[in-house]
Amino acid sequence: MKKLINDPQHVVNEAIAGVAAAHADILSVSYDPNYIVRNDAPVSGKVALVSGGGSGHEPLHGGFVGFGMLDAAVPGPVFTSPTPDPILAATKAVDGGAGVLHIVKNYTGDVLNFETAAELAEADGISVRSVVINDDVAVKDSLYTAGRRGVAGTVLVEKIAGAAAQRGDDLEAVASIAEKVNAQMRSMGVALSPCIVPHAGEPSFELADDEIEIGIGIHGEPGRERIKLEPADSIVDRVLGHIVEDIPFASGDRVLLLVNGMGGTPLVELYIAFRRAAESLAEQGIEVTRTLVGNYVTSLEMQGFSITLLKLDDELTELWDAPVHTSALRWGR
Amino acid sequence: MKKLINDPQHVVNEAIAGVAAAHADILSVSYDPNYIVRNDAPVSGKVALVSGGGSGHEPLHGGFVGFGMLDAAVPGPVFTSPTPDPILAATKAVDGGAGVLHIVKNYTGDVLNFETAAELAEADGISVRSVVINDDVAVKDSLYTAGRRGVAGTVLVEKIAGAAAQRGDDLEAVASIAEKVNAQMRSMGVALSPCIVPHAGEPSFELADDEIEIGIGIHGEPGRERIKLEPADSIVDRVLGHIVEDIPFASGDRVLLLVNGMGGTPLVELYIAFRRAAESLAEQGIEVTRTLVGNYVTSLEMQGFSITLLKLDDELTELWDAPVHTSALRWGR
Repeated sequence: MKKLINDPQHVVNEAIAGVAAAHADILSVSYDPNYIVRNDAPVSGKVALVSGGGSGHEPLHGGFVGFGMLDAAVPGPVFTSPTPDPILAATKAVDGGAGVLHIVKNYTGDVLNFETAAELAEADGISVRSVVINDDVAVKDSLYTAGRRGVAGTVLVEKIAGAAAQRGDDLEAVASIAEKVNAQMRSMGVALSPCIVPHAGEPSFELADDEIEIGIGIHGEPGRERIKLEPADSIVDRVLGHIVEDIPFASGDRVLLLVNGMGGTPLVELYIAFRRAAESLAEQGIEVTRTLVGNYVTSLEMQGFSITLLKLDDELTELWDAPVHTSALRWGR
Repeated sequence: MKKLINDPQHVVNEAIAGVAAAHADILSVSYDPNYIVRNDAPVSGKVALVSGGGSGHEPLHGGFVGFGMLDAAVPGPVFTSPTPDPILAATKAVDGGAGVLHIVKNYTGDVLNFETAAELAEADGISVRSVVINDDVAVKDSLYTAGRRGVAGTVLVEKIAGAAAQRGDDLEAVASIAEKVNAQMRSMGVALSPCIVPHAGEPSFELADDEIEIGIGIHGEPGRERIKLEPADSIVDRVLGHIVEDIPFASGDRVLLLVNGMGGTPLVELYIAFRRAAESLAEQGIEVTRTLVGNYVTSLEMQGFSITLLKLDDELTELWDAPVHTSALRWGR
């Protein structure tokens, strides 16, 4: 295992120290309990957004802390949910009196720990609403999940709900926008290689030299099927087919197309995949009006990618376009 | 070799088609000869910036085409210089009457082909100036280079010279800013793993399971030494030591610190490296006033990273902070 790390037990603490040093203009970091928080938090009168989960998916979630997006991110150990303590501490740190929205990816540990933290926060007089993200169409139940998993679409929820909070929507309205984005989006991933959790020291699964996993989870959980490596266009067509038929997306829809890298895939390959996805959607009469390509929700050094489609309307488009200033997503200021 | 590609011969053309589809609001792509150009080019009266080189280093250079940075990028085949033809075509396409600056990484093929293109453009009445980037302190001469190689610092030259052109500086002034940035910056890289050029199908070099290469080139050219894998902090200290002593950087300097991923390194590891670099610079009295962390100048799926330091003054800082709107670097609009 070759990794650019020191002690495997210190990976998360050292990485968030790096985040703090690199982005002091945007955020600061608290340790023990660990969380990353906007410099100007709590923003009085604004609904605050808190997300979190296991580390190893960077830039998710810490890269999305800042103006127009998250107020705090709570990084657990690699691929392991944070406990209720740091979630509660982050929730208290960002509450500006208008309540807090928890954005939770659908994994059993995350859901339970955010739930506990929400109950404790409510007991302290903070209004909390939660939205559980479950955009992955690959499998119904999985290793760590009852129901569909939450994957790369999470970044779209964080951006759009963050913009709603920033424009002054109340807690119910922000939660309802987040629910709407979750309901209108679908994702699916593919792995060309596994990844290695630092303190485990070996791959969580194996893939033969000519095999890929269709429908991989962001922790390497099994997907739908293992197939022989195919040309990029065939892989994209398979994955996109499953996504489109799920809602279904239909001719005349306007969509945001996200082609997300799993961490170890070169950008040049992501653009090859994007090209085919855009081409195929055009053939189906589905209009791509917003785009995002890059490493946004990763699985350490895994080679692979995921596709996310989000059905857009005027309101969601406007919220997507609204200014954002985080380390990983920034425009308009 | 597992790659998300179709025919290895079509990698570049399909990738730039993806770039065109993803970023139609910023740029468009011409084929045969291949180049990527700002939608609003030529900008009348503005000095135009053209860069380029072998593909496989994405987002360099196409990801930096747009307002406040490059007017055109010329992608050659993977790790292979573009011929003079597309460089000339791009130069003609972006000349707005104020001349064109060529930003050339110091590799023999790039230097020769940009030189030829510049002569042909001059013969057509276009004023061309060239700046050759050679920020890599690792080796004096290398596989494809006489003199020091041009590596990750190229993105800093493109940003800062691009801002100078955008504010209306004339060709001499923009060239002089670019030269100044090149003179005040130093870089060095490390590889944990090799990468595979698609049409070659096998790694360009081998590294044992416990070996890393200090001073790697962005095409996998040999560096200074091969050593056993060390903790991240030791690796950072070695590399940063070579960089700091080269100019040298000294106590009281203000610097931009870029920790650049080679393509296959997870962001969480880049932040661990950033943390140590920032800590070490602080210990030496060198003040980090601007930062950049992520995959900016890559080597396909290579695992590794590079560090770049640029000595800042008020003018360079102001130009760095100026608005930019490209697919890979965006702020202020």
